[in-house]
Amino acid sequence: MLNFELYNPTRLLYGKGQIGEIANLIDKKSKVLIVYGGGSIKKNGVYDQVIKALEGYEVVEFSGVEPNPRYETLVKAVDLIKKEKVDFILGVGGGSVIDGVKFISAAVHYEGDVIDIIQKKLNVNWKAMPYGAILTLPATGSEMNCGAVVTIEATQEKLSFSGEVLYPVFSVCDPTVIASLPEKQIANGITDAFVHVLEQYITFPQGAPLQDRFAESILQTLIEVAPKILKDPTDYDAAMNYMWCCTMALNGLISKGVKEDWVTHAIGHELTVLYGIDHGRTLAIIGPNLYSVMFDTKKEKLAQFGRRVFTLEGSDDEVARLAIERMIAFFHSLGVATKLSDYTEDGEKAVEWIAERFNERGWLAMGEKKNITIDKVREIVKLSL
Amino acid sequence: MLNFELYNPTRLLYGKGQIGEIANLIDKKSKVLIVYGGGSIKKNGVYDQVIKALEGYEVVEFSGVEPNPRYETLVKAVDLIKKEKVDFILGVGGGSVIDGVKFISAAVHYEGDVIDIIQKKLNVNWKAMPYGAILTLPATGSEMNCGAVVTIEATQEKLSFSGEVLYPVFSVCDPTVIASLPEKQIANGITDAFVHVLEQYITFPQGAPLQDRFAESILQTLIEVAPKILKDPTDYDAAMNYMWCCTMALNGLISKGVKEDWVTHAIGHELTVLYGIDHGRTLAIIGPNLYSVMFDTKKEKLAQFGRRVFTLEGSDDEVARLAIERMIAFFHSLGVATKLSDYTEDGEKAVEWIAERFNERGWLAMGEKKNITIDKVREIVKLSL
Repeated sequence: MLNFELYNPTRLLYGKGQIGEIANLIDKKSKVLIVYGGGSIKKNGVYDQVIKALEGYEVVEFSGVEPNPRYETLVKAVDLIKKEKVDFILGVGGGSVIDGVKFISAAVHYEGDVIDIIQKKLNVNWKAMPYGAILTLPATGSEMNCGAVVTIEATQEKLSFSGEVLYPVFSVCDPTVIASLPEKQIANGITDAFVHVLEQYITFPQGAPLQDRFAESILQTLIEVAPKILKDPTDYDAAMNYMWCCTMALNGLISKGVKEDWVTHAIGHELTVLYGIDHGRTLAIIGPNLYSVMFDTKKEKLAQFGRRVFTLEGSDDEVARLAIERMIAFFHSLGVATKLSDYTEDGEKAVEWIAERFNERGWLAMGEKKNITIDKVREIVKLSL
Repeated sequence: MLNFELYNPTRLLYGKGQIGEIANLIDKKSKVLIVYGGGSIKKNGVYDQVIKALEGYEVVEFSGVEPNPRYETLVKAVDLIKKEKVDFILGVGGGSVIDGVKFISAAVHYEGDVIDIIQKKLNVNWKAMPYGAILTLPATGSEMNCGAVVTIEATQEKLSFSGEVLYPVFSVCDPTVIASLPEKQIANGITDAFVHVLEQYITFPQGAPLQDRFAESILQTLIEVAPKILKDPTDYDAAMNYMWCCTMALNGLISKGVKEDWVTHAIGHELTVLYGIDHGRTLAIIGPNLYSVMFDTKKEKLAQFGRRVFTLEGSDDEVARLAIERMIAFFHSLGVATKLSDYTEDGEKAVEWIAERFNERGWLAMGEKKNITIDKVREIVKLSL
């Protein structure tokens, strides 16, 4: 295991009826900017709960943050904050809204050109505006981490950045919000969380047995809870466990002291930019094929995954191959298609487009062993067609 | 799963060579009080590393904190802090030193009689003095939680208290310190961490599968790492994993949203007060017998524990019984005796003494189902003789 630092000061409030608690967590003198997306929170009652909880506060609103939040939209919120002299941001939504709020929070006090935060993937270590989150769609884990992914529409770039100052002050996770989600979004969320774990876990044996077992715990629980929550999104226990798995999948814990991969995400982001495919689905397209192409590097962990999560038996090679098949079968069980051709007829162009982009960015040797080259990326995308 | 709040702002630094980092974590203008125990840190090189890291700081020292830290000793450190106008405390030691520092940190600004913090088990919610910790003995998890146990010698009371302000600002966990520990202390530490997990896990099914699996992950890893670290305390990987299990066993994560037990600890503390038995060993004496006496309440979780951790097969009843035996066998494999008669010839007196104490304190219905009565406590202690 490598040396590591663990620091995560976000206060999580989990369970039904917790939205009302936010008034105890935001300074009474604050002027609050509520940031949200397309308005689903007005249909499912969350907006009303938030407004009620914020009675007595001076409140401004900013809506219209898209899925895959866009730089061009978010900078308008930064302007609004400066104009209105806002002190605190409250993001109400899924990972896109919370990621968007992270950009806004980072941009308010940044003295340079704020597009650099994204394009230069800056380490945000200056004063950020404090913010809290009310999660309405479990998936990304953004509610308890300090990273974000934002898209620049003009240049068709979807890139991540992070910084320790970007942890939410608090996040409220009320599983009853799941009851009103479309099945497709729940399936996407499960897929997203599942692949978050895989990116940190399907690497090579790194002498970190506890992190391995925690990762397997999340995968097993997601597999167990997925059919329940898809069948009945009003199943409160299933909703709570699904939400909790999503948070734990990407709050930093399981990656402590180990090298991670994240190339499935890097390629997946390009598929979203190119074809508008939902984030979670891009991961289901790429992940299994990346594991096939990088089989020699990842065989031992794939075999461990197969034995412990799917109780498979056989040689390392056999179990590792079968584990990839079982992973694909799991995505299919969620109704998530795993071939690029399931989403577009124009998949072929992705191969060179992505290779060229990574080349431009100097992403020539990626993954936990720095052995995912541009040629390997081409191979992975081809296999995903 | 119950509603829960998760908040843990401690910054953990894990791995070799991290002690030098503390100068980046303590305000340069601080006057620092170093608190430690009997001086083992002067033999194993930790003291020298700390002094070197604190070059340029104004430093005061307070040594002599005992195992099972005593109120009578700790109040002297409180006086010293006031006299010397200290700003920051650095605890260097195991759980006893860090627990002691928690009391000191809580007492400095408390306006009433500081003995009340312990005797009235106050929720510490006033201003505490900030402190960091350098862990030299993995066991209690005190390095990443906000609770402490302190003994009042005059009244023979060993009691716990806690408060959100009592999280360490940082904790440095360098596994190389384990190389110089006596085998007995390592065995105690493993036992302590193991029973910490059991207190949160061996209850009843509570619809919290992820917490269950995290608990099982820690137990499995402790079982795996125990023979390695006992055989060779210089095995760095084993040391790192053992230390990490101890931290995760009691940093609050696995108890989120579930009811806990903690009666093994309550009884164990009395055995330490009465006979001076090491804390970890008192837990090995009481735990298995508590599970036998409360078998009906805990049967389902004992069976799950037996199946998942010890891969036992059979009916719930069979596996649950066998799991208790395997638990005892595990303690024995560490060289930890599990009968009170292994430690004292005067065990009999504990039965009524403990019953009377719990009665005086009004602890009439304890455990996760409030069904561990004074009579049950008597039964548990009798079975432990």
